Amino acid sequence: MGFAALKMKGDLCLPPRGPQLLSLCAVCLLPFLSTPGVLTCSVAPSVATASSSPLQFFISRSSTHPSRFSTIPAVPLAKMNAWPKDVGILAMEVYFPAQYVDQTDLEKYNNVEAGRYTVGLSQTHMGFCSVQEDINSLCLTVVQRLMERTKLPWESVGRLEVGTETIIDKSKAVKTVLMELFQNSGNTDIEGIDTTNACYGGTASLFNAANWMESSSWDGRYAVVVCGDIAVYPKGNIRSTGGAGAVAMLLGPEAPLVLERGLRGTHMANVYDFYKPDGSTEYPVIDAKLSIQCYLQALDRCYAVYRQKIQNQWKQAGIDRPFTLDDLQFMIFHTPFCKMSQKSLARLMFNDFLSTGSNTQISCYKGLEAFRGLKLEDTYNNKELEKALQKASLDMFNRKTKASLYLSTHNGNMYTSSLYGCLASLLSQHSAQDLASSRIGAFSYGSGLAASFFSLQVSQDTSPGSPLEKLVSSMSDLPKRLASRKRASAEEFAAVMEQREQFYNKVDFSPPGDIKNLFPGTWYLERVDGLYRRKYARCPV
Amino acid sequence: MGFAALKMKGDLCLPPRGPQLLSLCAVCLLPFLSTPGVLTCSVAPSVATASSSPLQFFISRSSTHPSRFSTIPAVPLAKMNAWPKDVGILAMEVYFPAQYVDQTDLEKYNNVEAGRYTVGLSQTHMGFCSVQEDINSLCLTVVQRLMERTKLPWESVGRLEVGTETIIDKSKAVKTVLMELFQNSGNTDIEGIDTTNACYGGTASLFNAANWMESSSWDGRYAVVVCGDIAVYPKGNIRSTGGAGAVAMLLGPEAPLVLERGLRGTHMANVYDFYKPDGSTEYPVIDAKLSIQCYLQALDRCYAVYRQKIQNQWKQAGIDRPFTLDDLQFMIFHTPFCKMSQKSLARLMFNDFLSTGSNTQISCYKGLEAFRGLKLEDTYNNKELEKALQKASLDMFNRKTKASLYLSTHNGNMYTSSLYGCLASLLSQHSAQDLASSRIGAFSYGSGLAASFFSLQVSQDTSPGSPLEKLVSSMSDLPKRLASRKRASAEEFAAVMEQREQFYNKVDFSPPGDIKNLFPGTWYLERVDGLYRRKYARCPV
Repeated sequence: MGFAALKMKGDLCLPPRGPQLLSLCAVCLLPFLSTPGVLTCSVAPSVATASSSPLQFFISRSSTHPSRFSTIPAVPLAKMNAWPKDVGILAMEVYFPAQYVDQTDLEKYNNVEAGRYTVGLSQTHMGFCSVQEDINSLCLTVVQRLMERTKLPWESVGRLEVGTETIIDKSKAVKTVLMELFQNSGNTDIEGIDTTNACYGGTASLFNAANWMESSSWDGRYAVVVCGDIAVYPKGNIRSTGGAGAVAMLLGPEAPLVLERGLRGTHMANVYDFYKPDGSTEYPVIDAKLSIQCYLQALDRCYAVYRQKIQNQWKQAGIDRPFTLDDLQFMIFHTPFCKMSQKSLARLMFNDFLSTGSNTQISCYKGLEAFRGLKLEDTYNNKELEKALQKASLDMFNRKTKASLYLSTHNGNMYTSSLYGCLASLLSQHSAQDLASSRIGAFSYGSGLAASFFSLQVSQDTSPGSPLEKLVSSMSDLPKRLASRKRASAEEFAAVMEQREQFYNKVDFSPPGDIKNLFPGTWYLERVDGLYRRKYARCPV
Repeated sequence: MGFAALKMKGDLCLPPRGPQLLSLCAVCLLPFLSTPGVLTCSVAPSVATASSSPLQFFISRSSTHPSRFSTIPAVPLAKMNAWPKDVGILAMEVYFPAQYVDQTDLEKYNNVEAGRYTVGLSQTHMGFCSVQEDINSLCLTVVQRLMERTKLPWESVGRLEVGTETIIDKSKAVKTVLMELFQNSGNTDIEGIDTTNACYGGTASLFNAANWMESSSWDGRYAVVVCGDIAVYPKGNIRSTGGAGAVAMLLGPEAPLVLERGLRGTHMANVYDFYKPDGSTEYPVIDAKLSIQCYLQALDRCYAVYRQKIQNQWKQAGIDRPFTLDDLQFMIFHTPFCKMSQKSLARLMFNDFLSTGSNTQISCYKGLEAFRGLKLEDTYNNKELEKALQKASLDMFNRKTKASLYLSTHNGNMYTSSLYGCLASLLSQHSAQDLASSRIGAFSYGSGLAASFFSLQVSQDTSPGSPLEKLVSSMSDLPKRLASRKRASAEEFAAVMEQREQFYNKVDFSPPGDIKNLFPGTWYLERVDGLYRRKYARCPV
């Protein structure tokens, strides 16, 4: 069937009946054009209705899926030549492995002093994946959970992009595997593929999705941003800084967490601080000292650009004063290990301190006066300064950042999803009232390097059923979910790491392991055939 | 130095003198914040001027770089809450290796019948890279050439994204290596990283860059889209479908090639037709028959969605008629081998044919009547239909597509850059007058799979010095540049392929080869150290 048939169908179902605004664009028309059996549409033709506008489609709320639209309000239609209001994060979903190793067990197993990981890095537990999970399965799980939680139809997604540095195929994107989830809906018109630079991929995806939604390419549908990684290291102390997980975010207008417009400080440079050049291993090459210095340097630069941009915006509005951390109610960081985020907040305070004249009120900078003459670039390895900063910023850390480290503390580093796990933690540890009207600062860092400082404005409305209240309450079970994981011994963990090494780059195998060790509803790798093709299955929900 | 110093500098250089509009955002302020020796700004402080708006900066045309703005007009400032006019491609640069192998030599070397590659695939020559070139060096070369050709300052770029499937690091993006080029300018506030799905990455980058420019994230600067790949295969016939190259595109408003708004038909699905799962080799795994079928199926779907969207736009404007290939003056395709593009144009004609009623005027569909009863999805392997279509579409192929295959014919498959090499070829083979006011259809396909059908509207103005005339004349030396390459024997080519295998994933080596085999001004890999760190140098210009 071609154009003639399509046109007839389109004419037949006009005008819209009981319209609930939701843009489905050409997607709901695809079934009439497609191969039977390959594409099928879950929206009944009688309710999938094309208006005369290329961007306007309607779907009836009193359709055969009455419950599908109960959680997230439908997205308003794309308007020509204008940005939709308040583009940002409408909903989130976090996935972490169902098994973890205790960092005190790792300390003993590695024969290091007690507190080396638990105090030195501020890490208590670390999630890990068996060979049964890979980057595709993590992302399948988190996207399916997001769609189930929000009860949105698969047709309502117009963009999906994956940020990851867990590359198991140098050509085929994780995104293409996720299309499997959309198959029954017939929705194959979904832009976005994978994007990579170390831990920065999630942020790049988030920015790309928000840009799409403000551009002429937007067709009125939602965007889904997916980030996920499996962070594994060779034997030794470095292994304690691993972790695994994935975060999916639903983006749309009128969001409870709005990406503040025009406020991004970005810094990119060519550095070999952490990279993965060896195709024969899952492990990175790391220059840890250099990486920490690059992280802090990027933080300084990004914060300076961000401050300059927001001050310029303020000036336009007649406000002429410096931006400081006081203007951020919360501050989240990419968190390779929790101590790093504490150091980073302290570092931002040092930036603020150096920006203030020596005459200004400085009670909050107690103990820093001795360091006034220093330049930022000379202080990356200044232990005395670090100590003084940590002390001066402790109260601020407890108020603005500590709550965001809940997931990182208990699960470890999730690379691209680390920053967004911090955001989820923040939401899980505060009430909607605590968060309402606040500005959340966010610093994203990916080695190599790419970094951005940006901010989210939290909406005001905290009434029951408000987007903010819904988002916050959807994250409230994070501690309970973490507590329900299975504790593995350090020996069991080491054995699983050995298995991962053994099966890396291999063909023709069914991963060892018991799916009882996975959470209900988790996707897992069932089989890699002789041609490296991966097949996935889902645990019973 | 902190905020106070920054603010002071900003105040000092107001107001603008002899302003040439060019948005430099906070970039030109960065030097005052940065580590000396790491970042230095090539814009003299006296001409880098901050206005009171966060998005408005001025640079004097009568500065110390008077010649820098001679080729490309400066980009207008970002406006709040509105899309800039006619976002698209302002300038292009194409890079291909300086050595090639003749396909007739390969036919003899592989002991196959004459014409197997030259007629069967329509390929005459194939460019290839020695170990001295990798994806980073290709992209360094093409970006530097673009910036040199356009004479734009490095500070004028606000976004740079790389689409590639030549992954030599699973974490560190090619983009970060390209930041090396920007180092002296002090411009490190450049968004965008790498994006990957087989040959689709260039298109994803292009879409992302255009979206950025229409979003609130845009700061008034240019975007650079880079795509490049080294396509290599194991011994045998398949090796004749390789190639290598890179394309860089400068994006901005009021472009001679405008990305038509709201007109993209996208199709994504989970397929294993071509992929690169084995980290220990540069070669892909391919199911060639499946890949061709997936390509054609994606073409059908994308074309259907595109047609539906443009017809809806027309309906809004009061025009009610079907879209056909007559509405495209030119049609370019991702070109794995040239015969595929000919097949694809024929396939589009079949789509048009099936869309017409049997009563309509069908003189252009001569010889197709016998196939009217068929469905698209049943015809992917119908050789009789293919033959009839090729005959019926031959004249159209010669008019609309053949010229775009110039580079592909002589250089082979460049993966992500293939489609944009076709665009460059089209520009090189036609005059501005031929191209003016035309619509160029474009089909991008990346295995795995991700595909889009979109279109470019060519501007009208062909006067000397017009953006279109400049763009077209900048591509006119393509045949001459191709003719200046060095011919290698099939044996020499095979030896280089063996070297590539030998050095893949290796450390601590200086690539063998003579830089005399590279074009002047080409970046090349000088050294990989014991920690896989890559160092590049540039041939004398």
